[in-house]
Amino acid sequence: MPSPEMQTVIAQLEEEKQRTAGLPPPSWEEMRADYQQMGTFYPAAKEAVQTETNLADRYTRCFSPEESDPTRAVLYLHGGGYTMGGIVTHEAITSRLALAAGCTVYALDYRLAPEHPFPAAVEDAADAFRDLVARGLTASRIAVAGDSAGGGLSLACALALRDAGDAVPGCLVPISPWNDLIGDTGWAACDGAVDPMVTAESLHRMTADYMNGGDGRTPYASPLHAELKGLPSMLIQVGTAEILLTDATLLAEKAKEAGIDVTLDIEEGAPHVWHHFSPDVPESVAAINRAGAFIRKHTE
Amino acid sequence: MPSPEMQTVIAQLEEEKQRTAGLPPPSWEEMRADYQQMGTFYPAAKEAVQTETNLADRYTRCFSPEESDPTRAVLYLHGGGYTMGGIVTHEAITSRLALAAGCTVYALDYRLAPEHPFPAAVEDAADAFRDLVARGLTASRIAVAGDSAGGGLSLACALALRDAGDAVPGCLVPISPWNDLIGDTGWAACDGAVDPMVTAESLHRMTADYMNGGDGRTPYASPLHAELKGLPSMLIQVGTAEILLTDATLLAEKAKEAGIDVTLDIEEGAPHVWHHFSPDVPESVAAINRAGAFIRKHTE
Repeated sequence: MPSPEMQTVIAQLEEEKQRTAGLPPPSWEEMRADYQQMGTFYPAAKEAVQTETNLADRYTRCFSPEESDPTRAVLYLHGGGYTMGGIVTHEAITSRLALAAGCTVYALDYRLAPEHPFPAAVEDAADAFRDLVARGLTASRIAVAGDSAGGGLSLACALALRDAGDAVPGCLVPISPWNDLIGDTGWAACDGAVDPMVTAESLHRMTADYMNGGDGRTPYASPLHAELKGLPSMLIQVGTAEILLTDATLLAEKAKEAGIDVTLDIEEGAPHVWHHFSPDVPESVAAINRAGAFIRKHTE
Repeated sequence: MPSPEMQTVIAQLEEEKQRTAGLPPPSWEEMRADYQQMGTFYPAAKEAVQTETNLADRYTRCFSPEESDPTRAVLYLHGGGYTMGGIVTHEAITSRLALAAGCTVYALDYRLAPEHPFPAAVEDAADAFRDLVARGLTASRIAVAGDSAGGGLSLACALALRDAGDAVPGCLVPISPWNDLIGDTGWAACDGAVDPMVTAESLHRMTADYMNGGDGRTPYASPLHAELKGLPSMLIQVGTAEILLTDATLLAEKAKEAGIDVTLDIEEGAPHVWHHFSPDVPESVAAINRAGAFIRKHTE
């Protein structure tokens, strides 16, 4: 059963979902501003040291624990349907993941749709990873993590690296990943009542803007439709209060079939990317700590 | 006479200058990392709300007071010799300038040399300004401020807008501006003993990397050599413990000759961009507050 803190958050999300149910969809500008507003409620952990750099020409915020292992790193790809979100919106997650993983988390400001449709985000993510390697890090000691669209993007990034003949990351941590942009056997056919946050309508709209007329089933956009062989160990975290639950379970099955070492970590009653609600919600803290422990183990 | 807090800072800077005097110049990577390290000592004011956006495709951190005037804005161009610095290094300044100016400060991650030599920074700054106007802000209600190289860049940005026939900012606030990349009548001929921080050697090196073989006297790189007519009111802040003091005083003279309303604000005993040392040093807090008051008055 979800903690009282988690129940409070879910009640707030439900209320917001009811409030906006009848309204016409806002513009991306409005959606982005709302998301930014939410981000200010969940600041970075004070214990994390913040610096910045550019990875392959995209702004990147670096979060590090005070005692950081300079030989390991995490590339983090934020969520927001390929159309919104950024570094501020996810700094509660990325700062705490750095503390949990014991190394720097590089939070990448990759290009967003509709201004920059597919495959801009995939190119930015793969190029950022290559830049970390060019700076002297060993690929197998870099984890790629991400949530929601960023979770799908973490897989697309690894696929793009593999297909280009580059070294792949040491492990992947897709959190509540969006792996299928069409979703006809998954979220599009799902009863939306289960999810207090994400709607199929919003996902369809994001797909349209990200794909810009292209086929959403293409593997780098929907890694569920990709040949996964050659990808590294992965920890998939997902909640049961998500229409994207099947995106996670189907991915886990497919990855296992491809011979990949997969850990499927399902949180009972948790909504989409509940990690956001750290440190207030105990399940959020625990999930980030499990992700950190997995990364420590698989970037050795 | 400088406050005790300022004297402590100056003593630390002098010590660091002595320590590094005999050493070979570090790489940009090392210089950038050192600057980032310094940035972590001077965090953003907690009272400022932080969000983010992209202005003309460059990452931008937005700092706002809780009660922010949405009709006014500041575009801020950080210093670092066109080769280093970013948003983290300057967040003590930008966050407090937002509180002082009563509106959002947009801190732009413009492209840096040597990866992106002149005129990349000027293009990014002018395009970011145009993007703010495209979002519905009135040009005359936007201030452009910046320190050191960013101070010169604030002038270059206004010149580029003027020359393209675009509306110019409501005012400019160049702080310890670097206005002349050759400096043969100014900093290059100056007794370096006056300055506990900036050396002529480091400026020559930055000029070489930023200009990449081009002529450093070109007006968008050295606005001191530009025709300034048509530029808006400006507040020039500079300390007397700077080899760049003449860059500021010569600019003020030239701007006055061009009929521009100029306020030259000289801080006795202050080193280069002493604003960094806010909130510990009273002169730093006071200078940011004067800049904020000037911006309020000239973006009405």
